[in-house]
Amino acid sequence: MKKNAIVGQSGGPTAAINATLSGVIRGCLSSEKIETVFGMKNGIEGFLNEDFCVLNDLFKAEADFVKLEKTPAAALGSCRKKLPSPNTDKIDEISIYNKVFSILERYDIGYFFYIGGNDSMDTIRKLSAFAYRICSEIKFVGVPKTIDNDLVSTDHTPGYGSAAKFIATTVSEIMMDTAVYKTKAVTIVEIMGRDAGWLTASAGLPSLLGLPAPDLVYLPEVSFSLEAFINDIKSLFEKKPNLVVAISEGIRYENGKYISEDDSIVRTDAFGHKALGGAGRTLENYLRDTLGCKARCVEISLLQRCAAHLASATDISESIRIGKFAVESALEGRTACMVSLKRNASSEYSVTLETVDVNSVANAVRAVPRDFINESGNYVTKECLEWILPLIQGESITDFSSGLPNHFII
Amino acid sequence: MKKNAIVGQSGGPTAAINATLSGVIRGCLSSEKIETVFGMKNGIEGFLNEDFCVLNDLFKAEADFVKLEKTPAAALGSCRKKLPSPNTDKIDEISIYNKVFSILERYDIGYFFYIGGNDSMDTIRKLSAFAYRICSEIKFVGVPKTIDNDLVSTDHTPGYGSAAKFIATTVSEIMMDTAVYKTKAVTIVEIMGRDAGWLTASAGLPSLLGLPAPDLVYLPEVSFSLEAFINDIKSLFEKKPNLVVAISEGIRYENGKYISEDDSIVRTDAFGHKALGGAGRTLENYLRDTLGCKARCVEISLLQRCAAHLASATDISESIRIGKFAVESALEGRTACMVSLKRNASSEYSVTLETVDVNSVANAVRAVPRDFINESGNYVTKECLEWILPLIQGESITDFSSGLPNHFII
Repeated sequence: MKKNAIVGQSGGPTAAINATLSGVIRGCLSSEKIETVFGMKNGIEGFLNEDFCVLNDLFKAEADFVKLEKTPAAALGSCRKKLPSPNTDKIDEISIYNKVFSILERYDIGYFFYIGGNDSMDTIRKLSAFAYRICSEIKFVGVPKTIDNDLVSTDHTPGYGSAAKFIATTVSEIMMDTAVYKTKAVTIVEIMGRDAGWLTASAGLPSLLGLPAPDLVYLPEVSFSLEAFINDIKSLFEKKPNLVVAISEGIRYENGKYISEDDSIVRTDAFGHKALGGAGRTLENYLRDTLGCKARCVEISLLQRCAAHLASATDISESIRIGKFAVESALEGRTACMVSLKRNASSEYSVTLETVDVNSVANAVRAVPRDFINESGNYVTKECLEWILPLIQGESITDFSSGLPNHFII
Repeated sequence: MKKNAIVGQSGGPTAAINATLSGVIRGCLSSEKIETVFGMKNGIEGFLNEDFCVLNDLFKAEADFVKLEKTPAAALGSCRKKLPSPNTDKIDEISIYNKVFSILERYDIGYFFYIGGNDSMDTIRKLSAFAYRICSEIKFVGVPKTIDNDLVSTDHTPGYGSAAKFIATTVSEIMMDTAVYKTKAVTIVEIMGRDAGWLTASAGLPSLLGLPAPDLVYLPEVSFSLEAFINDIKSLFEKKPNLVVAISEGIRYENGKYISEDDSIVRTDAFGHKALGGAGRTLENYLRDTLGCKARCVEISLLQRCAAHLASATDISESIRIGKFAVESALEGRTACMVSLKRNASSEYSVTLETVDVNSVANAVRAVPRDFINESGNYVTKECLEWILPLIQGESITDFSSGLPNHFII
């Protein structure tokens, strides 16, 4: 018996989340078990308002899929809504779940796909737990994405490779830019990633190929010491005038305080995550005051997560594959799971797709392992960079029309 | 009789200044009147230390030129050194010129090419004036570049098109990124350009093609009013939740004060130019305090001037042409001049190259004309965008090797 499917996107945008959406739509449209594939606008928030579109109508030709795959951000919109515990006894909380499942029933949905990071996997975990509680047969499958690469139970996350490629490229260009003057100066490049240093680690990639690379790389996984930092800068200044330092937005002192807590109020989002930013500016001012040298902070900011004009071809193709595989998994009857990438143990890079229990993923964070960072805590190791390098291979470039990117808009 | 040539780069880096350098080298190597072409490292500063390289040795194959043309920043390095007045009577100042001309004579230089912006044209003006004073026959030709597009006597400047393309692309991506949430938020994109708004104007380009574009665009050519700004934001919030505002780093209040002067000390460089930055952060805080909405500032920062991974093919090819034309002009005996681009009056965009008196260029700044800005001063006009659009056509993408940009390093 044919059923309908629904897909949504949640959490922060990436350059590859639409490629995964394309994969899910491709998978649904090519299955004889699925009739209509709905898109929910703005994730579970839009779902509750029945803000749906019919994706079958929007994707008729191969060119539509390709355009979507090269469009950044989340074509269906996103949200940061947190569902209550699925074991709740509170009537107002249960009524949210009742609403979700009555909508699912009304639209004859058999398969529910949610593309996102930790928080989105938490949503899949809760919906599938409630489905179990009410004996619903609907399959809930999570599809990972996050530029932060901080999900557990997967080799890496779609979206990370493209962000890493953009960061490594941009840092290579900043190396060229800062090298033109001979005056003593420090350029601090602040990179996203919250409490995980995967993105910042990618700034070191040019060094693996013998290209100009940052002089220092600081990840949040190792406590940051202002004293050691200043000593590092001083000894590097003895060798060369222009220094480039890559830092994670989430670097902290040994006492657990964020660098940015020194002079700015740290806000928190609906999930209790601290909204970071400001570490670079803090260090910029500190360097100027302490060493009297020129100092400048470059925040790669939103660009690192939405620069589809230069994405990793490897990342985009894996993102499409993972979307298709989510559909196959649901059709095989799997639920309460997340699609995961497993790196094969061969000399040439390749991945196998599998599903993992979503309970093992939700709300856990995977940090950069300590042995991927050097002993002094001021650079990543060769092994770390060799681990990242395959993920940034190949250039996926947005289609341009009349000189500007030609994005897919739903 | 054969002579040698020398070429240098000065001022801030761009994605296209190496394409111009390539054009100069191509021009010199293909002339029978030029023996050796020297590169001066770090502009006139390196020249005074005779820090030269022999470019004939470095450029043997077509691939070398192409690689240089796709490399950002300034391969020969840069400087910000200001020469004294050529009419000086002070002995220590005259001795600088004597040193310059004795080096030129010792290296048998007949042609001196200097690629840069206003300040570099000032250097060409002074050197050629002193040459006239001492009856030297050496030809001094300036070759323009600046992302700011603020040079007079040329339709536009090489480097501008690439920066404008990167800004318009990035802003298009930011439009996609910010559209995913439904919460009220303002994203301020701060763009370079000092006192000229050409770069910021390019942020409006997507609107010309009917694509998602910033809601407001503020240029330094029109006084900025906080009150009008807040009113603009308020009325836009009545229509949509997510606003994107493009602002120039150099926007000022009616009293001439920079927005950033509200809360930061404005530094000045050797030329007395104010080092700008901070307008976006100031407005971000102001919006948050006044309207209680989410506000965020994205500074495109260094990336807009060094992103050779996405340059304008039109800009890169014009930059090469202009470099070659500088050599032809010098060989024809022209001096004290700058190469200039003249836009032809045809429906299809094309340019003619010519030379202009460098005295008409040095130290003058070309602002965006008032009629390129709307009456309210909060957007650029269709005419302005139609003027910019031809300059960003075509994509020039850095060569990648193993996933990373493969830059030319001298």
